[in-house]
Amino acid sequence: LLDVVMPRQFPWATMRRRPPGLWRYREALPLGATAEPVALGEPETPLVDISAGGPRVYLKLDFLFPTGSFKDRGAAVLMTKARELRVARVIEDSSGNAGAAIAAYAAAAAISAGIYVPEGASPAKVAQIQRYGASVVQVPGSRADTARAAMEAAQAAYYASHVWNPFFLEGTKTVAFELWEQLGRRVPDWVITPVGHGTMVLGLSKGFLHLRDAGMTDAVPRLVGVQAATCAPLVQGSRGDLTLPPVVEPGVTQADGIAVGQPTRWRQILRAIADSAGFWTAVSEEEIRESHLAWARRGLLIEPTSATATAAYQRLAAEGVFGGHQRVVVVVTGSGIKTASQRL
Amino acid sequence: LLDVVMPRQFPWATMRRRPPGLWRYREALPLGATAEPVALGEPETPLVDISAGGPRVYLKLDFLFPTGSFKDRGAAVLMTKARELRVARVIEDSSGNAGAAIAAYAAAAAISAGIYVPEGASPAKVAQIQRYGASVVQVPGSRADTARAAMEAAQAAYYASHVWNPFFLEGTKTVAFELWEQLGRRVPDWVITPVGHGTMVLGLSKGFLHLRDAGMTDAVPRLVGVQAATCAPLVQGSRGDLTLPPVVEPGVTQADGIAVGQPTRWRQILRAIADSAGFWTAVSEEEIRESHLAWARRGLLIEPTSATATAAYQRLAAEGVFGGHQRVVVVVTGSGIKTASQRL
Repeated sequence: LLDVVMPRQFPWATMRRRPPGLWRYREALPLGATAEPVALGEPETPLVDISAGGPRVYLKLDFLFPTGSFKDRGAAVLMTKARELRVARVIEDSSGNAGAAIAAYAAAAAISAGIYVPEGASPAKVAQIQRYGASVVQVPGSRADTARAAMEAAQAAYYASHVWNPFFLEGTKTVAFELWEQLGRRVPDWVITPVGHGTMVLGLSKGFLHLRDAGMTDAVPRLVGVQAATCAPLVQGSRGDLTLPPVVEPGVTQADGIAVGQPTRWRQILRAIADSAGFWTAVSEEEIRESHLAWARRGLLIEPTSATATAAYQRLAAEGVFGGHQRVVVVVTGSGIKTASQRL
Repeated sequence: LLDVVMPRQFPWATMRRRPPGLWRYREALPLGATAEPVALGEPETPLVDISAGGPRVYLKLDFLFPTGSFKDRGAAVLMTKARELRVARVIEDSSGNAGAAIAAYAAAAAISAGIYVPEGASPAKVAQIQRYGASVVQVPGSRADTARAAMEAAQAAYYASHVWNPFFLEGTKTVAFELWEQLGRRVPDWVITPVGHGTMVLGLSKGFLHLRDAGMTDAVPRLVGVQAATCAPLVQGSRGDLTLPPVVEPGVTQADGIAVGQPTRWRQILRAIADSAGFWTAVSEEEIRESHLAWARRGLLIEPTSATATAAYQRLAAEGVFGGHQRVVVVVTGSGIKTASQRL
């Protein structure tokens, strides 16, 4: 596993003069000074105050991106890097939001893309990937077989994996910068997020540490990692002192975006949560369903995967975990529009 | 038909201190001073520079809203008004983007909603509307039968129609304010937009005239209205001096969002285009398909309905309609994610 190590610079006086959105933070991204962003019009995603007495609570609607999920942050930065490296073809394995994001930003960068998906992947999601002109390779067998096929193909191409490629994580870290800015240049006390392969939680961790090391904040938020109870290797793994990767056989879950039985960056993810003085929690299918519906009935259609985080917030708030003066952010990682016709 | 007439105030010094997005313009909206916005986190939608030599050309990605289309502008303002008026239940007829937007913002306002749709409406779109908790009434017969059934039901409820209700148009006019602001407080020379019932083009017209009468701009842009050739009553109507409403039998089109054979506000729409010194054009199914695919292959998945406008731009630019120093905006009204699995 590779990670990007870069100077902790954050020239705010320069950044603030640019339009809002992830590109204003470019000195904090590992891009050459002359790299032209592969951009599709990424807005600063909304931070919606949903406080109802007690702690200040916000939803970060991090799905209001061109392809409908926060994965556009990672894909935009990764494809900018790929173009800088004069890459001609990329490979990715994902039948979901990451596959769509890589396909879209590869198209925007005029880089050809092969997206490997397990046989039987959702036809709607495959259709979205194909519209961007990417070639979709359906692989028989398990999710692991798909990953193996992709890695093999990546011998002859650039592996633009949202799991393995460190430039993807560098893009997702911009969500932390936006939160800091939207909260009046202060970090929140807590951030609650769904965790599958950990791209969001690692991005948050990297981003907040970058801000701290650059002197923009003293504290960093406590991170709460949420998984579906039917597929919670990291929740289980957090309970012991692991030497081997945590592995579970994914059960059926509505939170298909985080149904990852064997998270590649498990050690890093567990450390990110622990170092932040955060914790892990799992939510039931019933909690996911109820929170998804409750938010839809308040007008926000979020991905069932993201409803793991809103459900966890609900329970933790009821348990009194958050102090009355604290600020809590719940990250909504994907749009519910893609799965509106899915049975709950 | 009713229209809102209000003072042309635009206190920019006050507005600019608020966060970006449609609510910063509230003095230009017909809302009481104490009305609490029914908000779901509406961002300022991106304006993407797609110039390639010659005129400056921009795509206004006006679909990056919670329900996936620009209709959220109208629905947010209309539902804020409805709550101010203590409305308990609203009726709307639309099986598409407007139905989803009204359902979502009614939910956000805790107002019950009945959405009337023609029998046979797209199951995916009906599913989205239902997720918000709205009751969907499927009406046998034609689109006109659905409208009649909705109007009847609206005798006992508030008719939150995107076609008839003037507060909806007041919301859509905020797109003009954003364009003016994003272009450095200057209006563009041209705006190209799809036209069905005319909510976008009327919003643009109202918004730019508001800016002009408030002294924020001397000129207003020339508006280009685009329809699908298989359903182009306004293109046809623009050729004569009409006394009767233009009516066509809608043919089959991929641009289902503007497949309106008999536009209610036809006289107002024709006048808006004519008064702006703009013009009308129709595009073929082949042009729609090609432009939709061309943009997807550049990474932007837009609704086929919106591809009417990008296709029209393409042709008009090739014909040399736009001057080299002019600024042209093409409005992208809906996300292509909802229809990604639709055959082209």
